[in-house]
Amino acid sequence: MSHSNNLISLICNTCQTRFDSSGPIQDYCPDCGPRFGTLECLIDMDRAAFDLKQHPLSSRTEPSILRYDALLPFHSTDLFPALRIGRTPLYNRPALARQTGVAELLIKDDGQNPSGSYKDRASAIVTTRARELGYPVVACASTGNAAASLSACCAASGLKCIVFVPAAAPPAKLTQIAAYGATLIAVNGPYDQAVDLAMAACKRFGWLNRTAGMSPYLVEGKKTGALELCEDLDMHPPDAVFVSVGDGSVISGICKGFHEFHQLGLIPFVPRVIGVQATGSSVLCDAFETFRSTGKITIVPRPVNTIADSISVSDPREGVRAIRMVASTHGSFVAVPDEEIQHAIRDLARIGAVFAEPAGATAFAGVTIARATGLVTETDRVAVMITGNGLKDIKGVQASIDFRTIRVEPDMSSIDRLESLMEE
Amino acid sequence: MSHSNNLISLICNTCQTRFDSSGPIQDYCPDCGPRFGTLECLIDMDRAAFDLKQHPLSSRTEPSILRYDALLPFHSTDLFPALRIGRTPLYNRPALARQTGVAELLIKDDGQNPSGSYKDRASAIVTTRARELGYPVVACASTGNAAASLSACCAASGLKCIVFVPAAAPPAKLTQIAAYGATLIAVNGPYDQAVDLAMAACKRFGWLNRTAGMSPYLVEGKKTGALELCEDLDMHPPDAVFVSVGDGSVISGICKGFHEFHQLGLIPFVPRVIGVQATGSSVLCDAFETFRSTGKITIVPRPVNTIADSISVSDPREGVRAIRMVASTHGSFVAVPDEEIQHAIRDLARIGAVFAEPAGATAFAGVTIARATGLVTETDRVAVMITGNGLKDIKGVQASIDFRTIRVEPDMSSIDRLESLMEE
Repeated sequence: MSHSNNLISLICNTCQTRFDSSGPIQDYCPDCGPRFGTLECLIDMDRAAFDLKQHPLSSRTEPSILRYDALLPFHSTDLFPALRIGRTPLYNRPALARQTGVAELLIKDDGQNPSGSYKDRASAIVTTRARELGYPVVACASTGNAAASLSACCAASGLKCIVFVPAAAPPAKLTQIAAYGATLIAVNGPYDQAVDLAMAACKRFGWLNRTAGMSPYLVEGKKTGALELCEDLDMHPPDAVFVSVGDGSVISGICKGFHEFHQLGLIPFVPRVIGVQATGSSVLCDAFETFRSTGKITIVPRPVNTIADSISVSDPREGVRAIRMVASTHGSFVAVPDEEIQHAIRDLARIGAVFAEPAGATAFAGVTIARATGLVTETDRVAVMITGNGLKDIKGVQASIDFRTIRVEPDMSSIDRLESLMEE
Repeated sequence: MSHSNNLISLICNTCQTRFDSSGPIQDYCPDCGPRFGTLECLIDMDRAAFDLKQHPLSSRTEPSILRYDALLPFHSTDLFPALRIGRTPLYNRPALARQTGVAELLIKDDGQNPSGSYKDRASAIVTTRARELGYPVVACASTGNAAASLSACCAASGLKCIVFVPAAAPPAKLTQIAAYGATLIAVNGPYDQAVDLAMAACKRFGWLNRTAGMSPYLVEGKKTGALELCEDLDMHPPDAVFVSVGDGSVISGICKGFHEFHQLGLIPFVPRVIGVQATGSSVLCDAFETFRSTGKITIVPRPVNTIADSISVSDPREGVRAIRMVASTHGSFVAVPDEEIQHAIRDLARIGAVFAEPAGATAFAGVTIARATGLVTETDRVAVMITGNGLKDIKGVQASIDFRTIRVEPDMSSIDRLESLMEE
């Protein structure tokens, strides 16, 4: 099976220079450098519109993001990993809407992806393209969701997967990655050195690099969360969409998805996209402030400290594009303290029945702050993207949970006291 | 929203006595006792057939097991928890079919349910019925998937959830349960005493009891996995279906589902259903052997020891029904050693791209044994039900994983040695 590949070329995010997309993948535009020269996929929207007219979304039955193939950068749909990528549930949660003071609160639970995180959307596109272009190996530096997701998609695609991790990474985090069969390269140093080594190895051996910010194909997968959200809501998008932000790649993708559906005339407007960071890892919040007052983007890396592991990033490699994309939706950035993230984990599970990892719950924590500062109002319909399953980080969520435990002896007299104990 | 409730009454599994289903729920038939007197739901199949003719499955769009409402024991569909229960992906895995020597190997990944296990199907039905009958509280004794699932469905339904656990249960297991808001009653004793106390408390305070084997509604949820499997395959069912077995409730449900679709004329035959236990917890394998030679069912509880935590059961409370139901499909039971379960975890993830907890992988381990003993042949189409997500028990799967780790120093000279290191 195949469809027309509507990918025209790769294009530099800053100088708009076009690069060939049919051969080996460049990491970034050589003139603009790694920070400003992020490459992205230029999609032929006229042809995409034609394809969508021929095969309307309403007639599609694919149980994965393949239903959006007209907007995806490959043509061999049978090279797509045989997993249910995306098609995650969207829940309307009136009780959480009341609590946060908005008109409607929608939760898109992307923790329900095959490997438990939003990253599956991106890994699926990267592995499909890797097979199409003939790469036998895909590699990345990561200790978390991106690596687990890549390892899963490689297992489903017969690709070799190599993951560079800091030697000190906790074994629990590595179990899922190793389970799907990835080879782990344990680098005797911090994360940044693992990234450097991954970059060098990919260049040297001709492996495809899935490290955050290093592949134009990641964003094409990440945009599909926005497309689904629109379809889930019968193309009546919410006013604002909250997304947790680490390196900036997920939020760039979500903005791109809304723009593409808007350009195709499928949705009447582009929702404001609000990036949420932990105060202990808020490089992009600060950069966005500076951008608003000066018009210039300056990313200033700094040490990080937050419980939200998956978005704890000292040097967001996709930061420049993320700021541009959020601004293009009239969106904004907010930062939330760890304490609020912990409350969010609890409220999401107890009131919303969605169990999220700290980074996933961060986006929900942002709604309360945004409401207080006027970024959203009581008449707004708000959607929150939950990017990771709470089961991914049991240790991390443990401290956030209110354990309501009553200790009793194993005799029937305990029963007599149970009701009064429960009322305490 | 409502549909006609086609539940006629509850019926004793042994003496066929009928019990009123409109009021408080009895635990078991008083004449036949807890082991033989398991109650189940008697569904009016004529009315179900009529409803399915009026609203054919092909026209249904519900993103949950609600699409089978004609066969479910409640009428208020709007009391169903607002979660995507069921509709889990089915994967065809040719490489695993070749490895196990069968014609086709299908994996139904029920680890993709909201709380990560098959139990969500049962909890959703129990909580719906609890609300319909006016129970404000649902309780159970469990330290694992059943409790996490019940807590999630209660959170989505505004019901109070109380979980009895042994005081020594590991905090990691309790985190998800507590996150969704359940009150934990930590009983200072072993699991069996937690069960006794839960039973007594439910009776005393009028709570609905979701402990395994104690509610006729559980099986009604558990049958939906079979219904989905048939639909996923365009009503062309596999020849054999493998299911891991602990207390016997899941496999009873799956058999019931196939029988109902067969009775309705929706599938041409009932697949053989094969129960798989760990050799260290194989009470029902032994009981099935005895049953085949004597025609009598005798459950002999005994101490258990297996890594497959979720199916480690010394006294399977639904054992009698499970044996009858499996026999009614011309199925069987097999036991697999822990070592084979560990291989199964690895092969499922690395070759099948599905990450399962030990109990989930046990069913797959059974295929190899069944092939060796002739229970299935090379021409059989085989389906395997994966009942729990590997993320549920990271500690349990850790020992099964083949960590292919290469340690390097963070300098570029490491790159030179990488290829040779990887070939070792």
